[in-house]
Amino acid sequence: MAIITEQEYRNRIAKLKPRLFIGGKRVESLTDHPITRGVIDATARVYELTLDPQYKDTMQSLSHLTGEPISRALHIHQSRDDLHKRLDMARLSSQKLGTCNYRCPGNEMLPSLAATTWEIDHDKGTDYHQRFNNFLKYAQEKDLVVSGSVTDPKGDRSKRPLEQDPDYYVHVVEKRSDGIVVCGAKQHATGAYAADETLVLPGISCRKGEEDYALAFVVPNGTEGVTYIGQYTPFSVERECEPDNRVIGNPLYGQRETCLIVFDHVFIPWERVFMCGEIEYTQSFITRFAKTHRMNCGGACKVGFMDLIIGASQLMAEYNGLARVSHIAQKITRMLQLNDTSLACVEMATEK
Amino acid sequence: MAIITEQEYRNRIAKLKPRLFIGGKRVESLTDHPITRGVIDATARVYELTLDPQYKDTMQSLSHLTGEPISRALHIHQSRDDLHKRLDMARLSSQKLGTCNYRCPGNEMLPSLAATTWEIDHDKGTDYHQRFNNFLKYAQEKDLVVSGSVTDPKGDRSKRPLEQDPDYYVHVVEKRSDGIVVCGAKQHATGAYAADETLVLPGISCRKGEEDYALAFVVPNGTEGVTYIGQYTPFSVERECEPDNRVIGNPLYGQRETCLIVFDHVFIPWERVFMCGEIEYTQSFITRFAKTHRMNCGGACKVGFMDLIIGASQLMAEYNGLARVSHIAQKITRMLQLNDTSLACVEMATEK
Amino acid sequence: MAIITEQEYRNRIAKLKPRLFIGGKRVESLTDHPITRGVIDATARVYELTLDPQYKDTMQSLSHLTGEPISRALHIHQSRDDLHKRLDMARLSSQKLGTCNYRCPGNEMLPSLAATTWEIDHDKGTDYHQRFNNFLKYAQEKDLVVSGSVTDPKGDRSKRPLEQDPDYYVHVVEKRSDGIVVCGAKQHATGAYAADETLVLPGISCRKGEEDYALAFVVPNGTEGVTYIGQYTPFSVERECEPDNRVIGNPLYGQRETCLIVFDHVFIPWERVFMCGEIEYTQSFITRFAKTHRMNCGGACKVGFMDLIIGASQLMAEYNGLARVSHIAQKITRMLQLNDTSLACVEMATEK
Amino acid sequence: MAIITEQEYRNRIAKLKPRLFIGGKRVESLTDHPITRGVIDATARVYELTLDPQYKDTMQSLSHLTGEPISRALHIHQSRDDLHKRLDMARLSSQKLGTCNYRCPGNEMLPSLAATTWEIDHDKGTDYHQRFNNFLKYAQEKDLVVSGSVTDPKGDRSKRPLEQDPDYYVHVVEKRSDGIVVCGAKQHATGAYAADETLVLPGISCRKGEEDYALAFVVPNGTEGVTYIGQYTPFSVERECEPDNRVIGNPLYGQRETCLIVFDHVFIPWERVFMCGEIEYTQSFITRFAKTHRMNCGGACKVGFMDLIIGASQLMAEYNGLARVSHIAQKITRMLQLNDTSLACVEMATEK
Repeated sequence: MAIITEQEYRNRIAKLKPRLFIGGKRVESLTDHPITRGVIDATARVYELTLDPQYKDTMQSLSHLTGEPISRALHIHQSRDDLHKRLDMARLSSQKLGTCNYRCPGNEMLPSLAATTWEIDHDKGTDYHQRFNNFLKYAQEKDLVVSGSVTDPKGDRSKRPLEQDPDYYVHVVEKRSDGIVVCGAKQHATGAYAADETLVLPGISCRKGEEDYALAFVVPNGTEGVTYIGQYTPFSVERECEPDNRVIGNPLYGQRETCLIVFDHVFIPWERVFMCGEIEYTQSFITRFAKTHRMNCGGACKVGFMDLIIGASQLMAEYNGLARVSHIAQKITRMLQLNDTSLACVEMATEK
Repeated sequence: MAIITEQEYRNRIAKLKPRLFIGGKRVESLTDHPITRGVIDATARVYELTLDPQYKDTMQSLSHLTGEPISRALHIHQSRDDLHKRLDMARLSSQKLGTCNYRCPGNEMLPSLAATTWEIDHDKGTDYHQRFNNFLKYAQEKDLVVSGSVTDPKGDRSKRPLEQDPDYYVHVVEKRSDGIVVCGAKQHATGAYAADETLVLPGISCRKGEEDYALAFVVPNGTEGVTYIGQYTPFSVERECEPDNRVIGNPLYGQRETCLIVFDHVFIPWERVFMCGEIEYTQSFITRFAKTHRMNCGGACKVGFMDLIIGASQLMAEYNGLARVSHIAQKITRMLQLNDTSLACVEMATEK
Repeated sequence: MAIITEQEYRNRIAKLKPRLFIGGKRVESLTDHPITRGVIDATARVYELTLDPQYKDTMQSLSHLTGEPISRALHIHQSRDDLHKRLDMARLSSQKLGTCNYRCPGNEMLPSLAATTWEIDHDKGTDYHQRFNNFLKYAQEKDLVVSGSVTDPKGDRSKRPLEQDPDYYVHVVEKRSDGIVVCGAKQHATGAYAADETLVLPGISCRKGEEDYALAFVVPNGTEGVTYIGQYTPFSVERECEPDNRVIGNPLYGQRETCLIVFDHVFIPWERVFMCGEIEYTQSFITRFAKTHRMNCGGACKVGFMDLIIGASQLMAEYNGLARVSHIAQKITRMLQLNDTSLACVEMATEK
Repeated sequence: MAIITEQEYRNRIAKLKPRLFIGGKRVESLTDHPITRGVIDATARVYELTLDPQYKDTMQSLSHLTGEPISRALHIHQSRDDLHKRLDMARLSSQKLGTCNYRCPGNEMLPSLAATTWEIDHDKGTDYHQRFNNFLKYAQEKDLVVSGSVTDPKGDRSKRPLEQDPDYYVHVVEKRSDGIVVCGAKQHATGAYAADETLVLPGISCRKGEEDYALAFVVPNGTEGVTYIGQYTPFSVERECEPDNRVIGNPLYGQRETCLIVFDHVFIPWERVFMCGEIEYTQSFITRFAKTHRMNCGGACKVGFMDLIIGASQLMAEYNGLARVSHIAQKITRMLQLNDTSLACVEMATEK
């Protein structure tokens, strides 16, 4: 059961009870609210694509831990071929959804965690890597949606975390024998309130004295002390107001939804902590994440969106009787050139 | 009483009963609906600015027909100085409102009508110009909001009006002794449903055989057979949904609101018809309108918005502690350069 | 002796006696004239690089006809790996020369000729492919410089060849039992006057009635009736005027030199004719040539030049004490981004 | 005789004996050398235009010192109208010459000197302004070509003048009762070797300790210790090499010629010194010069060149039968837009 069906995903997600606010109001049911429902519908479509025989090679992989078939969204890439297929997955899901697939950010943090926890253990004799592998095996077995968050709210960007309100950035406030207690916030966390788990990575390269901020861990949805505040877009709100008149935006899945996650004295058991105080590895965590994130999310994912936009532009030209007008054909050709150039760049990024 | 107060405007507009639909629902009260209320609030602010002694020179003029003080929004420019002050008015209202001032499109049609009706009369012995002057005097005396519309829906743009559904474009379907009956539609009519009057100009240069489409007239709000369909933006809808959480868009006046106007056998008396069949003047109507519209609405108005946007960008940089970061300062400087270049172009347009 | 030394090349080229004019004067000696000497020096450097053990893998290949080591400049690519190495060769020679390597255009015509002659023979029962293979084997054995030319002068581009002076385009004026007689001209022929052989391909997709223009052949340097007119650049002339003051341009190899080739009743024996009248294949000749030419010459070659230009820009910034000035560093970074984007595009072109 | 004829100019200039080197060789005769002859021909054409009745209003003005007619190239602008006519003069001469008019840089230094010398005198009780007016009256009476130079070679731009070779920047090395002795160099001095006089302004805003560099003066052509080194362009050299084949560049007047001026212990009498040590006014000198220089030379002059280039582009399109090809017509239209935008910016610069 390492790859679950769309319905199994829907059944599991229906049980989640995150403390979530959107537009100033508490959201009682993820499956009923028009915004969160869009997130769930999009994610469900990704589960569906994963079991579609036509896309199996792109959407599935074999776990390097167990050898079992898993969703590629939980795979640690082992080869260039894996990187290429990861690009294909990003482009395909953008083409099919026209919005975020919601399994991507965590996906790109997993390889970063795998490599960097190994490095810390190797240098320091810690056991972060084993903890991470245990979590990964668990996530692969359950086929979980693992979200991820990196960016702290930062406040005044000319100041370091300790020079201003220390709770802008996520950090440890207490270390106990069984785990740590964290405070702070992460923003732009894509679809986190509808994910089974959320990975938290450091958002800056920490310096000496900032050990409490050198922190990586994973937290399950619904944990006490965790509040999600939806950074919703107005196009999604419209879905609520005008159910029969979805003229603007993506009528099936809405816009990409992100949230601010507030951690108010949240307890994280040690087995879910993957770094705690090792400031010299924060840069490595971020860089490894950023490299694949730019390639997949900054690159192939947007190529997929552009595929839709270019097609829609051509269709509009045709509907308006303008497809053979020279300056319009030139603009659409220019869009194709830019999209192919972007594709070339991300494909080359897998080679170098 | 040639220039009325904000309150007088509000009192008058509250009596309007246009047949208006927004988001598929009939709007019963212009002053209560969150979208139409924004249009009225913005227009009211323009009336307020017009009587503000600080802006009198910019916002007022003297009627060339009566010599009385009038709103510059109803003035026919008589000199380069008038053109310069018209630019100032456009920029000022954009700076103050952050959205459309709703008195602009009609304003730019008036000079086009004044000149072209005179020309037709001169060549053909018609009396369009006198009719127009009568209307203008009336509008100036009452200080009316005169909206305007040019763009027909067009359908398949590779075809002429008569090659497709003839009702895409506004045209005459019957000529009677007391007036004409028109059908068709105009789109992108800015704030027309909240204006006292709407001017209608031809949207294309008509050819032989298209005489029924060579049409200019003015129609009062609430005329039988006229339906307005709001081409609303989602940001405005949000105002309705989230009254206490106006985080996105212009919280005071909303976005610029336009509408589709459908004319279903609307009767226009001859004294309100300013062209009917003179195809050889349609180009002149459009060109004269377009020249000042590009200068004021395409130019100075947007310079005013950029003033706001540049200030807001600088403020964001300062709040985030980034004002002295080189690449951000360069981008804001670049915005200033572009805005000053736009300003130079529109100022020069008044000279040549 | 399939790969010759720089000196062997110089010895052979010294014997060439093309009818060449530069700046209105007949050039008597290719090795003495400052412009043609630059072309020879550049080409000689390519021969040197080809035998340099460090670049062997890039600059050499094995003939698919004989299995013998040959210069990659005379190779017909057999695989994606060949295409990649061809890119590497283009970039390397640009980096080393800072000007044209002069063996490139012919190189990109050879695969086009190999494929299209095979196609014609297959469809029509002609023997162009065997003739071409014979020529190729001869060129590989002697390690010849094979130049190429495609672009006819064209005249009025809104007209076809036969609607204007028929001699703008290269065409057959007589067919004999032993060969054909051609007239017309080709321009922008890179370094043709210093090459052993020049390939001639059709410059347009010929239509019915234009059979005489559907022509592909190869002509040795010094053939009777062939005149070269150097389309020299002033930077090269300067080398002549100011031998001790070569401050501008490339002081070793000059600028890229092209020429206009005039064919005045030139006899081409049948064994050197690779197409004659088969209009339906002209498009294929051009397209196949253009695809690799854009990739190698439009792409990788220019990436190599940009490598030099970016390095020189950085050096200038350092010499002037400006390397840490923000807006200059940003511009150099932007150059790097553009160059890497170009590289990504050409690398991807080998894959698709 | 305040405005001289072309021939009077040629007669006077023929007597100049500057110590000038071009391409490493001493130039013996300004009127014979192909590069310097181009400079003289261009300047002579400006004298011709000045007396052409058709251009009188643009090219002439009345001296504010004497009321006599003078060349506008020696006028101190007194009004916005003067600024507008100065733009017209710049554009006209670019259109007529297709190269530098050689009277422009000095022209833009004169108003800066007039204003700033007045300010220094007012604050410090010096008599620079009277000296300047005496020189100006003399130049106007003789209708001299007054060149100007601002830019010192600077060396390492991260260092101040005194932190490196002090002779990179022009500065005082001795003050005597009858004048000063200066050393250093100025570069990019347009046509200085063929001008009657050269104005020298400070190239940086001087700080405390840099008083010797806060220097403004004027030096006649041929003064002992002054050496000119032509920063010639290869297009000009070509004129020498290929007299019958002037296919590239401007065949009448060549390219804009600038030079490096080396001051090796040059004596300047006090009556020709307009600032000496007043560091707090260096910024003002530069800024006043730069504002009009950008407007005239950076702006209107280049608009004039673009007029030529756009016309030539259109002509090329027509000659090649391409004038109605959509993407070419669009590019030429884009050139027109850019040129009109530039013109709008400089015209507006005269207003604000």
